[in-house]
Amino acid sequence: MNRTQHRSLNLLDDHAHAWSPAEARSRFRSGVSGSTAGCSAGHTQANLISVPADWAYDMLLFCQRNPKPCPVLDVTDAGSWTTVLAGDADLRTDLPGYRVWEHGALAEEPTDVLAHWRDDLVSFLIGCSFTFESALSEAGVPMRHIEQRRNVSMYVTSRQCRPAGRLHGPMLVSMRPVPPEHLPAAIRETSLLPAVHGSPVYCGDPGGLGIEDLARPDFGDPVDAEPDDIPVFWACGVTPQAAVMASRPPFAITHAPGQMFITDARDEQYRVA
Amino acid sequence: MNRTQHRSLNLLDDHAHAWSPAEARSRFRSGVSGSTAGCSAGHTQANLISVPADWAYDMLLFCQRNPKPCPVLDVTDAGSWTTVLAGDADLRTDLPGYRVWEHGALAEEPTDVLAHWRDDLVSFLIGCSFTFESALSEAGVPMRHIEQRRNVSMYVTSRQCRPAGRLHGPMLVSMRPVPPEHLPAAIRETSLLPAVHGSPVYCGDPGGLGIEDLARPDFGDPVDAEPDDIPVFWACGVTPQAAVMASRPPFAITHAPGQMFITDARDEQYRVA
Repeated sequence: MNRTQHRSLNLLDDHAHAWSPAEARSRFRSGVSGSTAGCSAGHTQANLISVPADWAYDMLLFCQRNPKPCPVLDVTDAGSWTTVLAGDADLRTDLPGYRVWEHGALAEEPTDVLAHWRDDLVSFLIGCSFTFESALSEAGVPMRHIEQRRNVSMYVTSRQCRPAGRLHGPMLVSMRPVPPEHLPAAIRETSLLPAVHGSPVYCGDPGGLGIEDLARPDFGDPVDAEPDDIPVFWACGVTPQAAVMASRPPFAITHAPGQMFITDARDEQYRVA
Repeated sequence: MNRTQHRSLNLLDDHAHAWSPAEARSRFRSGVSGSTAGCSAGHTQANLISVPADWAYDMLLFCQRNPKPCPVLDVTDAGSWTTVLAGDADLRTDLPGYRVWEHGALAEEPTDVLAHWRDDLVSFLIGCSFTFESALSEAGVPMRHIEQRRNVSMYVTSRQCRPAGRLHGPMLVSMRPVPPEHLPAAIRETSLLPAVHGSPVYCGDPGGLGIEDLARPDFGDPVDAEPDDIPVFWACGVTPQAAVMASRPPFAITHAPGQMFITDARDEQYRVA
């Protein structure tokens, strides 16, 4: 798989954490771009992947077989750009950044996909780890990337997803450096949110996931850790993009990594206990 | 929807709780029938629904859109009768009882489906509330139906599932009478097992779910409650059978209500925290 260049994205605005979801979507619709880490705190964020209807069963099965990286929050009917997760939203315009894929290769990175939309596209909204960052912050776990005003670090791992039909590819992870004394809270809080990736898939030596250098993420920004921090890895909703790169469907649209769809759903709705 | 007759099923055997999953499947393969409530304690039980490949996307989407009644544990490739949940199992023979459906009508209730199998069948294994009964028993919650050697009571509710493609139908529930002092434990324990229906969908007055008479379940057996018991309702994996009755796909195979597939998976694998 080609390593894509990571480019630094500033957080959107000092006040982005307080934007309502509708306000955030409206700003993105008018062209604002950037990582949504910390945006609209307390509201559920989602990864987007839209594929032709002919590929929808393979994608839904891929998600069912790989629920840690691909927890499905909603699936649209073919051609529809609306979702039950945000009544007034338009999936073609309301994300800060998109990627358009042709035969597994990145073709374009527009800020809307009005010109790329097709009537046969089925859109999958997949849980995002930004969703649990509010819970982690409230539990006292420092969020280094937000403190440093950066996108989260994301990596391709050596673990393969369970294939589904024509779709296969590696599992991706996001990484957050966590001080040892906060590790129990980080695991406990995220375990209760399985719809947004749940508990970490791995902690510690990145070599165990086949990651060579934490300072060179495959997506997002490098994030500085404190000396005692433990790298904690959660399954990542960019995994379907890696499956697109590996499996080469003729066409797909995704969000740009870190530039998520902000839903009206509250994080609490996805807490199991 | 036609109310199907419920018929009393004895629990299988005084020792069924201690059967290994392979032993249980072997007995069912040789013709033993009965409710699997309490069988192979600590191992995950599953509902079965097999539909023609042409209906598989609608079924998978129906499950995604209705995760409380239809939490998917595995989906087979078309025509396959094996599952990752039990390496040596044959889905055509290893359940105690099956139902064969033609155009939404019950056509037959055989103890194996070797003669009914088709190369285009995609099989869905869906979490079953029998799975959390071990955890409830260990937490001190009495399981009235097991004490009374009966199948659990199941009811059609007035709540409609979110439709998916051609599939629609009501949500079904299983009911367990729970003493008030055990209600917190019952809710807490099941909340941590979302893959087997998770927390209850409703407690108390059955009229709120459109259930007229608890003594007349739509599936399974009536179960006697103690005077102070609160009826607690969990979403039920027989819901896809109700969707088959309502939506009339040309062909389907399911388990017989209460006569589940015993997997090799341990309940613990599905506990989120």
